[in-house]
Amino acid sequence: MTGDDRAPVTVVGLGSMGRALAEAFLAAGHPTTVWNRTAGRAAPLVDRGARRAATVEDAVRASPLVVTCLSTYDATRQALEPAAAALAGRTVVTLNSGGPHDARETAAWASAHGARFLDGAVKNVPQAVGGPDTLLYYSGDRAVFDEHEATLRALGGDTVHLGDEVDLAALYESAVGSTLLPALVGFFHGAALITARGLPARSMVPYSIKWFEMISSILPALADEIDAGDYGEPFSAVGLFDGALADEQRVAEEAGVDADWMEPMYRLVRRAVEEGHADHNISALVEVLRKPERAE
Amino acid sequence: MTGDDRAPVTVVGLGSMGRALAEAFLAAGHPTTVWNRTAGRAAPLVDRGARRAATVEDAVRASPLVVTCLSTYDATRQALEPAAAALAGRTVVTLNSGGPHDARETAAWASAHGARFLDGAVKNVPQAVGGPDTLLYYSGDRAVFDEHEATLRALGGDTVHLGDEVDLAALYESAVGSTLLPALVGFFHGAALITARGLPARSMVPYSIKWFEMISSILPALADEIDAGDYGEPFSAVGLFDGALADEQRVAEEAGVDADWMEPMYRLVRRAVEEGHADHNISALVEVLRKPERAE
Repeated sequence: MTGDDRAPVTVVGLGSMGRALAEAFLAAGHPTTVWNRTAGRAAPLVDRGARRAATVEDAVRASPLVVTCLSTYDATRQALEPAAAALAGRTVVTLNSGGPHDARETAAWASAHGARFLDGAVKNVPQAVGGPDTLLYYSGDRAVFDEHEATLRALGGDTVHLGDEVDLAALYESAVGSTLLPALVGFFHGAALITARGLPARSMVPYSIKWFEMISSILPALADEIDAGDYGEPFSAVGLFDGALADEQRVAEEAGVDADWMEPMYRLVRRAVEEGHADHNISALVEVLRKPERAE
Repeated sequence: MTGDDRAPVTVVGLGSMGRALAEAFLAAGHPTTVWNRTAGRAAPLVDRGARRAATVEDAVRASPLVVTCLSTYDATRQALEPAAAALAGRTVVTLNSGGPHDARETAAWASAHGARFLDGAVKNVPQAVGGPDTLLYYSGDRAVFDEHEATLRALGGDTVHLGDEVDLAALYESAVGSTLLPALVGFFHGAALITARGLPARSMVPYSIKWFEMISSILPALADEIDAGDYGEPFSAVGLFDGALADEQRVAEEAGVDADWMEPMYRLVRRAVEEGHADHNISALVEVLRKPERAE
């Protein structure tokens, strides 16, 4: 297949992720039209062969597939509103963060304008877009996904359709993404401890990577426990975590580092102990998360 | 080398990790003496060839190397106190959690009894002990480590000496371990969202594993930014996280899941924005962690 056979695609929203998406389409030989509120963002893409549309409506009219990458679903609808008349018969794919409710609302909005709709999420950083292992998942009508799959696959080799329910991508995006900020804050906390000692943060990286591999290795077992509602084989018992906050606080205090952000997680552990989970595996925390304290 | 040539070793403390350590020593052919306050814990190890000591003093006298695996440094010193007279000339290796201050205190205690001392940490779950890639790190006198390295390597193929300062293992243990509870709570939160929808937690595992791989892939760059104090190449800007709490709360509320545990992390993000880091990379959070709010 030569570049001439590739389906045209439009990218709306040229932040660092949007630019990476457009670059990946260009690299795969797709005629790529780009649009951004601030036109300057398009210049490096034009140098690589992208066509810069003068208006968002021109951008939408240029391709049967319009991929948007704005900050929110609200911003996406606002950006596309001037092009509403051009949406009929096209497919809109949103790649932004937000919740399932937002995805459903945006699907309804697209449908009202006669457009077909897929919601998706890029599960990696901009630099990884287009990579053979880069994960993106989509939800919405399977037939629409099938029609555009070859084009979408330019963005990452691990391109998955989660299901026909349009909000599944946003649901998984929220669920899988829930670990990002906590894992990073944990790493930065560790880096603050190490650097307070005059050692480079870089020195802990190989150990942190191993640690994440360890965490990954236990996720299938933890998920199975959650699905079975049986936490009785404790390889990492709730009780082992209970009481460790005092230690964490002392280490942090010695290093002059803020440990306040950990406290509510240890409150979850305490509540799990109080509910009889001390000798259960740490996956039993899911039971406490399912009972918001405020609602009690 | 036959089993007869292997150095004898004693394991004190037979919780799930202590038993795993003893099993790994036995599997590698080391004559292994075990002791636990509750004697019954030793039975399965005795079946595999371990010798059960009648008292902790007998256990200490049985080997030049005594590996302890109790819950805390305090518990370790208490357990070994009746054997204090037997410690002189032996090497004590502690594998428990606790802070650098505790490690220093325990090193001083061991030294007062004429014992040599290494502190260490097992960076994996009990089931992984003895594996070729399993990471354990130690700190303390390099000559003492060198003398026992061959024996200690039975516990994991990735056996590292961090340095002569005795509290380095506890420091790295705290630093690297800071991500464990947050990463797990994030995963359980996601599992609660997915299961509230009637989908199995197991369905998110492949994506969560990819997500941790992504996080691991950016750690070297994040650490370099922290070491350089330069957060100016934002591939994941602080500002992108700011404001996302409302989304997380709405998704959680729809699923009936407790999102309170996230709030202080988003407060860190907010403080970073207020301190001018909105357009900096998320690694700039380390600057906020270094300025505890309570001290302001």
